[in-house]
Amino acid sequence: MHITIIGSGNVATHLAAAFKNAGHRIVQVYSPDIQHASLLAYHVGAEAIDNLAHINPDTGMFIISVKDDAIAHVAKNLAIYQKLIVHTSGATGLDTLLAYTGKAGVLYPLQTFSKSRELDFFTVPLCIEAADEVIYTDIQQLAATVSNNVYSINSAGRKILHLAAVFACNFPNYLYSAAQQLLAGHNMDFNMLRPLILETAQKVQEHLPADVQTGPAVRNDQQTMNNHLQMLNDTPQLKELYELLSQGIIKNNVDGHGAK
Amino acid sequence: MHITIIGSGNVATHLAAAFKNAGHRIVQVYSPDIQHASLLAYHVGAEAIDNLAHINPDTGMFIISVKDDAIAHVAKNLAIYQKLIVHTSGATGLDTLLAYTGKAGVLYPLQTFSKSRELDFFTVPLCIEAADEVIYTDIQQLAATVSNNVYSINSAGRKILHLAAVFACNFPNYLYSAAQQLLAGHNMDFNMLRPLILETAQKVQEHLPADVQTGPAVRNDQQTMNNHLQMLNDTPQLKELYELLSQGIIKNNVDGHGAK
Repeated sequence: MHITIIGSGNVATHLAAAFKNAGHRIVQVYSPDIQHASLLAYHVGAEAIDNLAHINPDTGMFIISVKDDAIAHVAKNLAIYQKLIVHTSGATGLDTLLAYTGKAGVLYPLQTFSKSRELDFFTVPLCIEAADEVIYTDIQQLAATVSNNVYSINSAGRKILHLAAVFACNFPNYLYSAAQQLLAGHNMDFNMLRPLILETAQKVQEHLPADVQTGPAVRNDQQTMNNHLQMLNDTPQLKELYELLSQGIIKNNVDGHGAK
Repeated sequence: MHITIIGSGNVATHLAAAFKNAGHRIVQVYSPDIQHASLLAYHVGAEAIDNLAHINPDTGMFIISVKDDAIAHVAKNLAIYQKLIVHTSGATGLDTLLAYTGKAGVLYPLQTFSKSRELDFFTVPLCIEAADEVIYTDIQQLAATVSNNVYSINSAGRKILHLAAVFACNFPNYLYSAAQQLLAGHNMDFNMLRPLILETAQKVQEHLPADVQTGPAVRNDQQTMNNHLQMLNDTPQLKELYELLSQGIIKNNVDGHGAK
């Protein structure tokens, strides 16, 4: 397949590399910043462009990986080529593309990407949706060349998934950061917490999270929780978070989910 | 070393197994519930007891892994044997033991343990503290037989670590659970989120969390955040958490820590 990548961010970078590695040809990489476009284009053997007027129409599809609020603008500009247009956004409906073309689909990779970090793309869940069955089959076949986890998810389901991903990834990462800063304030090394963080994530690969919840809240250990709250008096925002999260754990447990 | 284990919970179970595997002899396992004591004792070739009056004094040390508020009571009962007494609690000071004996120390494993899950104990950070240098050396040498990550941490530092561990482990696990319940409410499988959860934890094994923060809050994507908040109207507790955590991420980013 000949593929044009619109965007040069984290998702665009990993997608382009995965498709290239699977034997597809990346025709062009577009970014409004030509340096960003060039860097990714160099890695995947493509042409870099910083102007949508320089699109090479000899492509099989456009994959749009830009900020959510720029998707419509890009789609409008690409629709004239009458090729398949796919976006990669969890929070954006298929209708954003359908406003400009019937040849529309979604390929949402449910993973957190950083340019500086390689990962095994075959483990990445790819959630796909399409304007019709023919397009769906095309996208499904393409997705299967780069991932072993391809799911059919419509726009409503994708929005739920995206929200759940914020709770499963973005928020835990922020809590890691809060923990790191608590340690740094007492000259202790974040390295001490890294095995704990990894094991916490590895545990729920086999178990449901509520079944392996540990800590003072699930034991309803009021004394320890009160001590912790006192230690957070100087950081009222973390104190409020501690209270709210502990209440959630206690409630989860009472509702009959968890074990100690 | 001859070791007596007081307790039969998650920490006691993993510690007893690690010491047994390292060639130490587990003399007895105590639990007020004889069935719990027997199960662990069987696995580590020890005698099970449910009464502290049945302690075998022919032991080198007592390791207390019971609920925090039971440590003092147990220590008081064991002090008469004049052997080394060590507790394993993050939230409890050394002074709780010093009230009853000078032969006191702490061996705090900074990890989340579940009986149902094996882990490589050599990766577990062990934080040790002792009443004097001779005892410190004894505990350090013992700790080094089961872990490659032995740290010297005093009671004040250990309390900070324990608090940080709640943020790095217990709270993220609760957020995994919230994500799982969001998906379950729409008949979607938690399996879809598992690779994301694992990658989020793996990322911070090499990076600082603030440097790899992703998601709508770090991009200050107000439109997506507003959509998410609307989707959480039926779960006001999660909505409040979403707001508080997003504010924290935005503030972290403004303070100059993170990248996109």
